[in-house]
Amino acid sequence: MPRFQRMAVLGLGLIGGSVLKAASGGGLNVVGYDPDPHTADIVADAGFETASSAAKAVQGADLVMLAMPLNGLEPALQEIAEHLDADAVLTDVGTLKTPTLNLVEKYIPNAHFVGGHPLAGTEESGFLAADPLLFRSAPWALTLAPHTELPRWLQLAELICDLGAKPVPTTVAAHDAAIARVIGLPHVMAEALALIGLRGGPLGLSLAAGSYMSGSRVARTRPDLVATWCDHNPSLVPALDEVIAQLTHAREELAAEGSILDLTTAGHDARINWENRQFEPVEVPAATADLIEHGRLGGWITAVVPGENGRITLLGMRPIS
Amino acid sequence: MPRFQRMAVLGLGLIGGSVLKAASGGGLNVVGYDPDPHTADIVADAGFETASSAAKAVQGADLVMLAMPLNGLEPALQEIAEHLDADAVLTDVGTLKTPTLNLVEKYIPNAHFVGGHPLAGTEESGFLAADPLLFRSAPWALTLAPHTELPRWLQLAELICDLGAKPVPTTVAAHDAAIARVIGLPHVMAEALALIGLRGGPLGLSLAAGSYMSGSRVARTRPDLVATWCDHNPSLVPALDEVIAQLTHAREELAAEGSILDLTTAGHDARINWENRQFEPVEVPAATADLIEHGRLGGWITAVVPGENGRITLLGMRPIS
Repeated sequence: MPRFQRMAVLGLGLIGGSVLKAASGGGLNVVGYDPDPHTADIVADAGFETASSAAKAVQGADLVMLAMPLNGLEPALQEIAEHLDADAVLTDVGTLKTPTLNLVEKYIPNAHFVGGHPLAGTEESGFLAADPLLFRSAPWALTLAPHTELPRWLQLAELICDLGAKPVPTTVAAHDAAIARVIGLPHVMAEALALIGLRGGPLGLSLAAGSYMSGSRVARTRPDLVATWCDHNPSLVPALDEVIAQLTHAREELAAEGSILDLTTAGHDARINWENRQFEPVEVPAATADLIEHGRLGGWITAVVPGENGRITLLGMRPIS
Repeated sequence: MPRFQRMAVLGLGLIGGSVLKAASGGGLNVVGYDPDPHTADIVADAGFETASSAAKAVQGADLVMLAMPLNGLEPALQEIAEHLDADAVLTDVGTLKTPTLNLVEKYIPNAHFVGGHPLAGTEESGFLAADPLLFRSAPWALTLAPHTELPRWLQLAELICDLGAKPVPTTVAAHDAAIARVIGLPHVMAEALALIGLRGGPLGLSLAAGSYMSGSRVARTRPDLVATWCDHNPSLVPALDEVIAQLTHAREELAAEGSILDLTTAGHDARINWENRQFEPVEVPAATADLIEHGRLGGWITAVVPGENGRITLLGMRPIS
């Protein structure tokens, strides 16, 4: 299975910058582009190859990664549509996969597109926060669909393994539904806590400590970015309904019985059981349906191993049920 | 102003153990007691003085700190009632001040009681997690009431400063109302997130990352302890109502407009403004009403300075409004 020769990273913030740093060297030629000239200067000064436009960056690249914020995606796709190599794999790093897929299908319908989402990041943003170790042991969702050309998906999965991350095969729809709960909910709740927690006056501001700080940590992230991780995700509405119902139930128990012990017990169990999951190594058939099922069961890929007669062996891990 | 000579710490978990470690030495004689013999052995093996009962621990102590979980408070007060020195200051470290006050008034109505609450801790518990530096720069609420004998309060405030913490003067009622928002809400929301965030199936469990982890961190704490920080606090009910209303509004905006940008902007502003508060040094009159007002405005004490003619100067910090 061939490896990628030249990768273009469009958008050099925290994620794109970290990919640029992590993927450079090791036989892969990487070029970066950022529309902000100040960022581009910093990246060039740090010794990385940069291009003066997205169109120039993608020329000759067999892998193009869209790593700009969601509102920069449409103009970038319009710009690169005519310049993208016909064989290039196009991927992204967006938190939601539906918006990217819709835009790619609109502007570059023939692209070999694989949606990607590294579950890595901090509340910081920008190239100066970029870290080549950001993806170590991080899940990295990679979408599959019936028309996905599996060899290209596997080629990308191998690169993701090289970055230290754990490719999680999934579909666009399953990914966005899961993200509503594990990214959308935490952010909406952190924002609500950040706001309401401090509404009791200055005494509370001076008593707020660890639990307020960790609970509201991600409210430090740029609010327009957080909104793009939540907005227009239909699965977030019912997930919020469940949280509101749970909080309402706890509120009723507290008012009537005086205790929220049922909730604290259930929440603690959920969190600890999650931490204590055990995994086992498995071989995963190199077939779209098998890969999607592997991801649905909580598994990921650890290695893409070329074998005899062009046969590929996929090694993975999956939860012990 | 005299300093305390001998302190008894009853309950040697994370908070009591950290106080034992931080207060030992420096001219203060400290004795610890824990009802769990295994804990008591560990503490004694670490070189600290321990007593074989709460009654023995408090004999001869001019400061007694109740540092057991809330459910251990009633038997401890019953046990020490007959043995506590008539002049001793009694304090506690509980998250809510009303339950302690009610029990003290029931069992030792003549006690010189000052409610205390260090806003320090981790999701860990037990003496093995105790850390003498736990209180560095941590707010430490100290309650005042019309009948509080100010010299004793100041004596305790000075010790709290010595531990590295920031004494925040407040009343029992104002404290518990503030705690509903900055301790109660973060814990209830963390428990709800821990539970609902993972309800989407195993794919979500493998994609949960930083925002889920920090948002649900305090759900790792023993659930019975968390319940005692929330239960029977009447201020938590309306605070939960506000959070539920805020989440419901965000849910409606998301369903109707497709965006939660209003919430993310407001939450981000609240959190960042909190981080960016500025403070200025002030002198605080050594009078109960002035101290309560100083705490209400978000201030704390930095030093208790004895002056001429037995006059006390209180130095503090307060937010610049």
